[in-house]
Amino acid sequence: MPTIARSVIRVAAGAALLGLALLGVATPAAAQPAAAQPAAAQPDIEVHRAAAERLIAAALRDSAAYARLTQLVDRHGNRPSGSARLERAIDWIVAELERDGFDDVHTEPVRVAHWVRGAESATLLTPRVAALPMLGLGRSVGTPPNGITAPALVVRDFAELRRRASEARGRIVVYNHPFDTTANPFVAYSQAVQYRAYGVDSAAALGAVGVLIRSVTPHSLRTPHTGGLSYADTARRVPRIPGAAITVEDAEMLQRLQDRGERLTVRVTMGARTLPDAPSRNVIAELRGSERPDEVVVIGGHIDSWDVGQGAVDDAGGSVVAWEALRLIKQLGRPKRTVRLVLWTNEELGLSGALAYRDAHRAALANHVLAMESDNGVFAPSGLLFSGAEGGLPLVRRIASLLHGVGVDSVALSGPEADVWALNDRGVPTIAINTDPSRYFWYHHTDADTADKLDPREMARCVAVMAVIANTVANMDGRLHGPTPASP
Amino acid sequence: MPTIARSVIRVAAGAALLGLALLGVATPAAAQPAAAQPAAAQPDIEVHRAAAERLIAAALRDSAAYARLTQLVDRHGNRPSGSARLERAIDWIVAELERDGFDDVHTEPVRVAHWVRGAESATLLTPRVAALPMLGLGRSVGTPPNGITAPALVVRDFAELRRRASEARGRIVVYNHPFDTTANPFVAYSQAVQYRAYGVDSAAALGAVGVLIRSVTPHSLRTPHTGGLSYADTARRVPRIPGAAITVEDAEMLQRLQDRGERLTVRVTMGARTLPDAPSRNVIAELRGSERPDEVVVIGGHIDSWDVGQGAVDDAGGSVVAWEALRLIKQLGRPKRTVRLVLWTNEELGLSGALAYRDAHRAALANHVLAMESDNGVFAPSGLLFSGAEGGLPLVRRIASLLHGVGVDSVALSGPEADVWALNDRGVPTIAINTDPSRYFWYHHTDADTADKLDPREMARCVAVMAVIANTVANMDGRLHGPTPASP
Repeated sequence: MPTIARSVIRVAAGAALLGLALLGVATPAAAQPAAAQPAAAQPDIEVHRAAAERLIAAALRDSAAYARLTQLVDRHGNRPSGSARLERAIDWIVAELERDGFDDVHTEPVRVAHWVRGAESATLLTPRVAALPMLGLGRSVGTPPNGITAPALVVRDFAELRRRASEARGRIVVYNHPFDTTANPFVAYSQAVQYRAYGVDSAAALGAVGVLIRSVTPHSLRTPHTGGLSYADTARRVPRIPGAAITVEDAEMLQRLQDRGERLTVRVTMGARTLPDAPSRNVIAELRGSERPDEVVVIGGHIDSWDVGQGAVDDAGGSVVAWEALRLIKQLGRPKRTVRLVLWTNEELGLSGALAYRDAHRAALANHVLAMESDNGVFAPSGLLFSGAEGGLPLVRRIASLLHGVGVDSVALSGPEADVWALNDRGVPTIAINTDPSRYFWYHHTDADTADKLDPREMARCVAVMAVIANTVANMDGRLHGPTPASP
Repeated sequence: MPTIARSVIRVAAGAALLGLALLGVATPAAAQPAAAQPAAAQPDIEVHRAAAERLIAAALRDSAAYARLTQLVDRHGNRPSGSARLERAIDWIVAELERDGFDDVHTEPVRVAHWVRGAESATLLTPRVAALPMLGLGRSVGTPPNGITAPALVVRDFAELRRRASEARGRIVVYNHPFDTTANPFVAYSQAVQYRAYGVDSAAALGAVGVLIRSVTPHSLRTPHTGGLSYADTARRVPRIPGAAITVEDAEMLQRLQDRGERLTVRVTMGARTLPDAPSRNVIAELRGSERPDEVVVIGGHIDSWDVGQGAVDDAGGSVVAWEALRLIKQLGRPKRTVRLVLWTNEELGLSGALAYRDAHRAALANHVLAMESDNGVFAPSGLLFSGAEGGLPLVRRIASLLHGVGVDSVALSGPEADVWALNDRGVPTIAINTDPSRYFWYHHTDADTADKLDPREMARCVAVMAVIANTVANMDGRLHGPTPASP
């Protein structure tokens, strides 16, 4: 799940987006007036160019990152929170990190949500019998063993649901909200994902008995996309009804049938259950700084995934890119500040790994000089997204100048990625890699999220970007300008 | 199934392609020396331009073809040979054709192959347990109820299988032959589909107990593609072993695991059965010619499909395009020659509809002045593919000049489409529409072959092309030059 999803989940259902900074659609930095800074305060970046060039050459030399990715995901598959697969993958990673010879390889305990899918299916019963490929949504309640059979009501959006409120009682509401293929994919996602996140409560409030959403994607080969839903009404004034995603194709077919006056009947069966929270772990390894070991550059990704596909794009790829960046920095020699790899658990189902890291390191956050997560797919990098004080942009731009050789040509202000949001919120500056967004949502939360969707050369370029930024920030005079802390 | 598939199925396993004319990769007509013809013998085509322009305007005026397509496939779903769904779809079409007021609406009986899929699954058991999405291949035998569990041997091609012949005994052979994404998709298909068509016999001859093929496609979202296999060894010197398609993603994953030295074990369970041949029907409707009713222009598509998706691209789309072309010609007025719509049954599993039409109309074939099938996807049209005497090309090119307004700019010699091959073989000239081939094999024989993959405007352009050609050939002085009959 990328930043925007986490942000959107905090938006009230049906409300307009709250002017959030959207990853991938950031305000161009060129349009931002840079705060005046005394020239003397600006660290010299050029002294780091030789190291940057060595890191870039090392990253592009082979397909080491891609090889590690395939070892991880072919061996362990997907890694949902609460699963034995996730914990086995963590064990394997820890052993590999130790073999790599990093400092202080360890795990930190996290309690994670434990939702299991169970057997599930959706079937159109009238006007004809047809299987509807589906995936239940994370956190959804299940159905009775024989499922729920009900007439369906297809609506395009919340506004249409309100207009047809009197028709919703006793029905399965089908949200057929299209993904805007003319917009930046992350913006289109932020709009369409509201139906996945909040559709259940809005329908249940009108007496609906279940919800099916059109999968949130610009491209489908009859591909259902899972993801989390939220029962936002914690007071439980409305009942919790099950929610699942069907394919774009079938949402459109149901729309056509309804538009032709056919009466739709659908059966949905879901064995979904939420079990007690389970033990999991964040994974940590570092290169201890030679001069200022207490000052920390965090790089990482999230090691959990949805329970479909291989969780390769989201986010084994980002995790491995950060890991490889640490390995290349180690080859270069110990940095002045500490560079720490953090592989967060439970990004997809509650961010409890991110919160646990923040809480465990609360006293040290003021010395976290940068946090970088890679969670937008390690596709071709084109720029950097900075979340910090606007006045810090010129320095980020000068650091980025070390990266022209791998295609990084722009720096923009943007919101942080999901797992570093909790750090950014406390004043830690964050940088994300702006990667090609065109195919990310084709695979997002599907069985098609597999290693072959990533390109070894593009991954290597992402490794170069992360290694150069982390190494430069860990060695440079001065620090990046963090945002004003929102929380104490 | 497009032409090339039918052609390739006749090629011996592993042999080089026999110089077949490949649909979509035809020899450019411009490079062909046109046989000299007396100018006086060339019919006047310009007199048909006004009618052509009226047909084009009528076709592009609305989305009638797309609306009919969705009515057909949303109501009836896919239509495999032998199924009640196919026969119900045929009943509905006949009633609609009668309502349209065509002449001589009727069906002609055909015995069709009746293969049923049954429950099926494939599972990787070692080095880890993972479901492998799959589709059994048409005509395949099933497995015992508990499936076949065996070590897997992954090979890239028949040559590698021969080199590793000693390792095949007792194994499930996985053909991981890639689809050449740099070639014309129909050429790439013709190469890769050999493993689907003939892989079983080649593996069984070495003692293999089952076959999995990499799905034949340039693009996958973990999408299995079915299609027919052939037990070519009719003498049954080798046992018939089951064959199924897995996804590109999983074929690549199995390859990687094997390359890393892992021992692969796979379980394949298939309830596939071949039942006794079943009754089906070709559907026929026509506009009887006002002057030469015994001379016939045939237009059509195939109404059967695979048992996945909606069979919309393959080939409800082509069927509806031909049907709409007939409707528009009717609005223009009765043509001089007869224009006959033929919707063939059982294209996908034996071509018995095509053969039955040929045999039932054997005495009239000499007066079949043209046969057009649309079975390459009714995507954007760009040209015409002619199978007839080379000397006939200039006339086809002059007819094509009526179609510049809908994007038809080229005429080439090419092999006939599948259902009109049996007519072409007897000397009937054929024309196919050359449509954009780029996405055809994304959907081909999958659950993703649904109505939304076709564009109403592109379909309307295909209707215009078919209507103009059929109407012009039905009304012009003189006839197209057919090929030299290959069969008596």
